[in-house]
Amino acid sequence: MNLVLLLPEDLVARDHAHLTGRRLAHVRAVHRVVVGDELAVGLLGGKMGRGRVLRLDAEALELALGLDQEPPPKLPLTLVLAVPRPVVLNRMVAAATSLGVARIVLLNAWKVEKAYWASPKMKDENLHGQMLLGLEQAKDTVLPELRLARLFRPFVEDELPELLAGGTGLMAHPGTGEPAPKALAAPVTLAIGPEGGWIEAEVQSLLKAGLKPLDLGPRILRTETALAALVGKLF
Amino acid sequence: MNLVLLLPEDLVARDHAHLTGRRLAHVRAVHRVVVGDELAVGLLGGKMGRGRVLRLDAEALELALGLDQEPPPKLPLTLVLAVPRPVVLNRMVAAATSLGVARIVLLNAWKVEKAYWASPKMKDENLHGQMLLGLEQAKDTVLPELRLARLFRPFVEDELPELLAGGTGLMAHPGTGEPAPKALAAPVTLAIGPEGGWIEAEVQSLLKAGLKPLDLGPRILRTETALAALVGKLF
Repeated sequence: MNLVLLLPEDLVARDHAHLTGRRLAHVRAVHRVVVGDELAVGLLGGKMGRGRVLRLDAEALELALGLDQEPPPKLPLTLVLAVPRPVVLNRMVAAATSLGVARIVLLNAWKVEKAYWASPKMKDENLHGQMLLGLEQAKDTVLPELRLARLFRPFVEDELPELLAGGTGLMAHPGTGEPAPKALAAPVTLAIGPEGGWIEAEVQSLLKAGLKPLDLGPRILRTETALAALVGKLF
Repeated sequence: MNLVLLLPEDLVARDHAHLTGRRLAHVRAVHRVVVGDELAVGLLGGKMGRGRVLRLDAEALELALGLDQEPPPKLPLTLVLAVPRPVVLNRMVAAATSLGVARIVLLNAWKVEKAYWASPKMKDENLHGQMLLGLEQAKDTVLPELRLARLFRPFVEDELPELLAGGTGLMAHPGTGEPAPKALAAPVTLAIGPEGGWIEAEVQSLLKAGLKPLDLGPRILRTETALAALVGKLF
């Protein structure tokens, strides 16, 4: 937690926050601060700055706030991600958020097991919590836009072409022989398939919607490794 | 497991392998193959190719081998990694291997907890196993060179300058304001600090040894995300 992320309900006054629960426990266990010290803080959806510790005990963390910095800009990147295994999903949603992805679409695919959609990890509350962890990690306050697309074809045929308008669409697909372009300026939509990859019919639909294939080389990476490597390469 | 990685002791003849245990269980559970089908295989430290299934049952997987492909080249990259938390260590060693890192140095640092070194995950057998998983993931057969450096100063003062000779040394360090160089050709040594970062005395030692600071921007990434993003950016 590199940033103590404040929710609107933590504010007891415009410049005064009162925290309990997970964030209190984390600050007590990990940050070595005492009354008078300052912590990096940010208001969800708002500005960032410093919080001076007014009180820190088993009951509450109270902070006097000075919020005067804008959060870092998002990457102009929409990530279209075939739903990964639940344990990977948590890490990927947090990592994508920390990397600055502006919009995350969780998409169904042939090789996405139906059980993944039924997992408690796919519930809004969990996904929201993972995005908060990503913001706390990266020192950001702005949630990515999150969209669940349970039906592959309607999303890819009807919505994806609109998402791509005016930007670049890329599809990570091993063996296509097209190296990743570097340092793109335009908005980018990046589709990452499930473990085992997209099936051929999906590849054809994604190409038809306007995505270009790109290849990371002969090495097959886990989706979470591929995501970070591609973001590093593209931006 | 995108590649069935064969160990020398699996070979009952030059072109005939007999597998049991984890790899047998994985192939039975995940790969949908029957006798006569082919699997991507590789011999640890040797060539890759195809293995035709001769037998697949609860007792053994037998393969007729045709190994005629070279493994993919390694990246000219030495990763100097402050020992992460054990649960992260496993993922990072496997990920670094899958990315093609040629050499991994696990280094002590002020903010590395002593308990990390005592973890069973730091034992050779576990680290070797994680590297095998990375090879199986990436379709590679060549283990990275692995080195444990339990003492920061002797390694950084005596060994690191030699490692850097003729190449580029980089130290990931937030807030230094130096953006990552792109598309380096020379051999690269990349040092990634512990959660919480290097302390100032360590930064000074690493600079003195010849590393240049680089900054990934205002976002603070988890070490495993930073590793993949930097590899994507640098190569």
